[in-house]
Amino acid sequence: MTQRTQSRSGGRSARRAARNAPLADHLRPIRPGMPGGTYQPLTALDMDNIHASALLALEQIGLADAPPSGVAYLTAAGAIQGEDGRIRFPRALVEDTLARANRTVTLMGRDPAHDLDLSGTRVHYGTAGAAVHLVDVNDNSYRECGVQDLHDAARIADMLDNIHFVQRPIVCRDITDNLELDVNSIYACCAGTTKHIGTSFCEPEFVKHGVELLHMIAGGEAAWRARPFVSNTNCFVVPPMKFATESCEVMEECIKAGMPVLLLSAGMAGATAPSTIAGAIVQSVAECLAGLVYVNAVRPGHPAVFGTWPFGLDLRTGAMTGGSGEQALLTAGCAQMHKYYDLPGGAAAGITDAKMPDMQAGWEQMCSNVMAGLSGLNMVYEAAGMHASLLGFCHESLILGDDLIGQAMRCVRGIEVTEDTMAVDQIRQVCMGGPGHYLGTEQTLGRMQQDHVYPAFGDRTSPKEWDELGKPDLIAKATRRKQEILAERAKARFDPDLDAAIRSRFAIHLPA
Amino acid sequence: MTQRTQSRSGGRSARRAARNAPLADHLRPIRPGMPGGTYQPLTALDMDNIHASALLALEQIGLADAPPSGVAYLTAAGAIQGEDGRIRFPRALVEDTLARANRTVTLMGRDPAHDLDLSGTRVHYGTAGAAVHLVDVNDNSYRECGVQDLHDAARIADMLDNIHFVQRPIVCRDITDNLELDVNSIYACCAGTTKHIGTSFCEPEFVKHGVELLHMIAGGEAAWRARPFVSNTNCFVVPPMKFATESCEVMEECIKAGMPVLLLSAGMAGATAPSTIAGAIVQSVAECLAGLVYVNAVRPGHPAVFGTWPFGLDLRTGAMTGGSGEQALLTAGCAQMHKYYDLPGGAAAGITDAKMPDMQAGWEQMCSNVMAGLSGLNMVYEAAGMHASLLGFCHESLILGDDLIGQAMRCVRGIEVTEDTMAVDQIRQVCMGGPGHYLGTEQTLGRMQQDHVYPAFGDRTSPKEWDELGKPDLIAKATRRKQEILAERAKARFDPDLDAAIRSRFAIHLPA
Repeated sequence: MTQRTQSRSGGRSARRAARNAPLADHLRPIRPGMPGGTYQPLTALDMDNIHASALLALEQIGLADAPPSGVAYLTAAGAIQGEDGRIRFPRALVEDTLARANRTVTLMGRDPAHDLDLSGTRVHYGTAGAAVHLVDVNDNSYRECGVQDLHDAARIADMLDNIHFVQRPIVCRDITDNLELDVNSIYACCAGTTKHIGTSFCEPEFVKHGVELLHMIAGGEAAWRARPFVSNTNCFVVPPMKFATESCEVMEECIKAGMPVLLLSAGMAGATAPSTIAGAIVQSVAECLAGLVYVNAVRPGHPAVFGTWPFGLDLRTGAMTGGSGEQALLTAGCAQMHKYYDLPGGAAAGITDAKMPDMQAGWEQMCSNVMAGLSGLNMVYEAAGMHASLLGFCHESLILGDDLIGQAMRCVRGIEVTEDTMAVDQIRQVCMGGPGHYLGTEQTLGRMQQDHVYPAFGDRTSPKEWDELGKPDLIAKATRRKQEILAERAKARFDPDLDAAIRSRFAIHLPA
Repeated sequence: MTQRTQSRSGGRSARRAARNAPLADHLRPIRPGMPGGTYQPLTALDMDNIHASALLALEQIGLADAPPSGVAYLTAAGAIQGEDGRIRFPRALVEDTLARANRTVTLMGRDPAHDLDLSGTRVHYGTAGAAVHLVDVNDNSYRECGVQDLHDAARIADMLDNIHFVQRPIVCRDITDNLELDVNSIYACCAGTTKHIGTSFCEPEFVKHGVELLHMIAGGEAAWRARPFVSNTNCFVVPPMKFATESCEVMEECIKAGMPVLLLSAGMAGATAPSTIAGAIVQSVAECLAGLVYVNAVRPGHPAVFGTWPFGLDLRTGAMTGGSGEQALLTAGCAQMHKYYDLPGGAAAGITDAKMPDMQAGWEQMCSNVMAGLSGLNMVYEAAGMHASLLGFCHESLILGDDLIGQAMRCVRGIEVTEDTMAVDQIRQVCMGGPGHYLGTEQTLGRMQQDHVYPAFGDRTSPKEWDELGKPDLIAKATRRKQEILAERAKARFDPDLDAAIRSRFAIHLPA
């Protein structure tokens, strides 16, 4: 008996060691870019109708306020400027653009391991936004956020498996010069992570400065153009149905610089877009189709993300709300339209209206995140850390969001139905002469890592264990993890010579 | 101008008054029994394969441990008892049962307004479980729960629009006599709510006592049989593939008493069911098909809910976990199988492993609740209040769950795509000579109540307003609401004569 016990215990500890070893990438239960699409809130007829309505809106209403350069590009491509100044889009022009648009877009990371393939229904989650407050969970308070907070967000995101890209989530309120703001936002993100980055520019003339910095980081213009690891988040429209004149000029500069473009149409349903979910989707689709024509008129085939981002509104107060069920539906419906066109697409999810990472934050962030993933949204923006309807960003919430998104991704992975997983043979063995349970069967142990996502912060102890552990608090655990991450030097930081060169060329606000 | 301002202000206050008036039932944005089904984790082939595997398991493996009465019913119906004592089910018997089973099941409330029509993909949410602890949010602690806690849960659930039924969520640990436990559980629930109730019985002989109480409450046996407002939650199997002998005898008694049956198969994936999602679904479907044959052998067409409730397990520790993505997939996959058979079905969702109603609780409860709804699950059991992987029940969490489920239900309602909602005419009016925004348009105001779900506890204030309001805490708000509800006399309480009669017949533990 002693021998047998030893042998079993040896086997058990060997298994335990195997379980604790990191899994090979292809065996991990969840990975960036898993296909979604099992959730389809729109029928095929619904999508046909939305498409037809968007075409009608583009043909009859069109968009106002294109810059002179945009008017030239668009009319040369076949759009028509009316006497009212609006640019209208004949159906054939939109259809031609759709036929020729770039469908094989990869958004690159500075580290190629973080490349994002936006084909099909592949799902990726990341940060985004323009929060003006940092959420302080220890003080239960909001304060203005600055460049260090942005850098810290990038550093934290760099360490989180389920945050696949870092669109800059906050505005550096401590930088008053707008050019310095744009340059430092790029610096703070790139010095914090080697994942794909999204950023924006305040003015068209600032693009060349940002691109100069990116050339330095990449090791020259050719290297940058071969692997552009930053995309331009471009609010090219002021809904309803007006081009954002200056942003369009920014977009033209970014296209010329080889930077992928996120065509971001952020209508507010009930204010700057129709209050109905279908109406907000129609308008957003129409606006993004106009943007797609624009991009392809400047440079055919330029990589663009179809960024229908309609937001919800609380109609009682007129204030934005991003945590509602209506928001989750807006985003999921948009994701389906992206796939209707087979275009790489993105939209917003994971927003909460809660001020702190409390139960409301959890349910609101999960609702839209899991529905976005199940609907096959390629780029789930704002997926973690965003509070107070996008006004606040929270580092601890970002860390907890990694757990939350891991769970959503497990749902996206779905149910594998094979002879092996249906397990009739195993049921037979267990029930007929077997042990009567599945604990410790080869099939159970063999799949315990590759089938299951285990939370890093979510607590699964029993009430008794929880009590014995001193009732660990979720937020306190996230705070400790934040401190651990920020205590180490960011892996993404530039080598000292490059950093010195950047600092001699640009006014970098982060301390060296 | 003065006149116009007055008129506008008059219009505004009239609109505000209209907005605050309760909506007619048919105009409410969400209602019990809205159809789901837009989320389909299984393909048609997957479902065919799961069905074929379940038939194979029933034919070749069968179920052990049927009571003598069950053996008689089942073999008379065409099942075959092997020399090993297991009951095996020929394919034709299962198919015949499926063809003849009751598909038009309505679970009734004591108040007919709360009737639950379980046809198609109609979705209902409610409580369930057998928690042994009450979660005290003020003390951050767990304590044993009792009959008053159960009664309070029913009273609270009675006031919550999005809790559609009350299966008893907790065990009255302060009642040591098992007959008194069963009778008092029924009393505590019925005295707290007129919604449909689910309960269980410890022993077959106890059923007649419970039914006697139900006859008294209903006003006689005929009234009870015409509208049975309590169903029997029956764990008729001990997975894997064994009948629960005594529970089967309970089931037979309940069927004879005209009580609908929830055929509850609660395998633990990795312990008492295969660890794979598909395998756990196969076994659960096989077990519930066996149960369906059993029910129909006792009384053809007796109302039964197909209760595939596989639970998740944390394979690292062997402990149950109900808050995972795997759990949400188990439940959603089961819901699809119910619809494959076009049978009324139920499963578990809304469970959290978190000990308190924190961010983890929010994300875990929403994940499975929204996926269950989108998959068209008729009866979403355990949907609110369940913590610590079902060991704890929390009144405040139940109250917050009403908000959470309201949001999930808004997602179930989905996206209406019509000429009106696509709003091209409205876009045209707003953009071409109109105000350039949709605030205050007739279409926006006209739909602001019937299209949108507004949370009762979820906070949508800006950081500034939140600060001015003293940073309201979600849990504190729920605690106040609990106190308000419990301070009033329960509407469902029996009239004094009936109550006295019940108390003279049964040992009722709740004070009169």
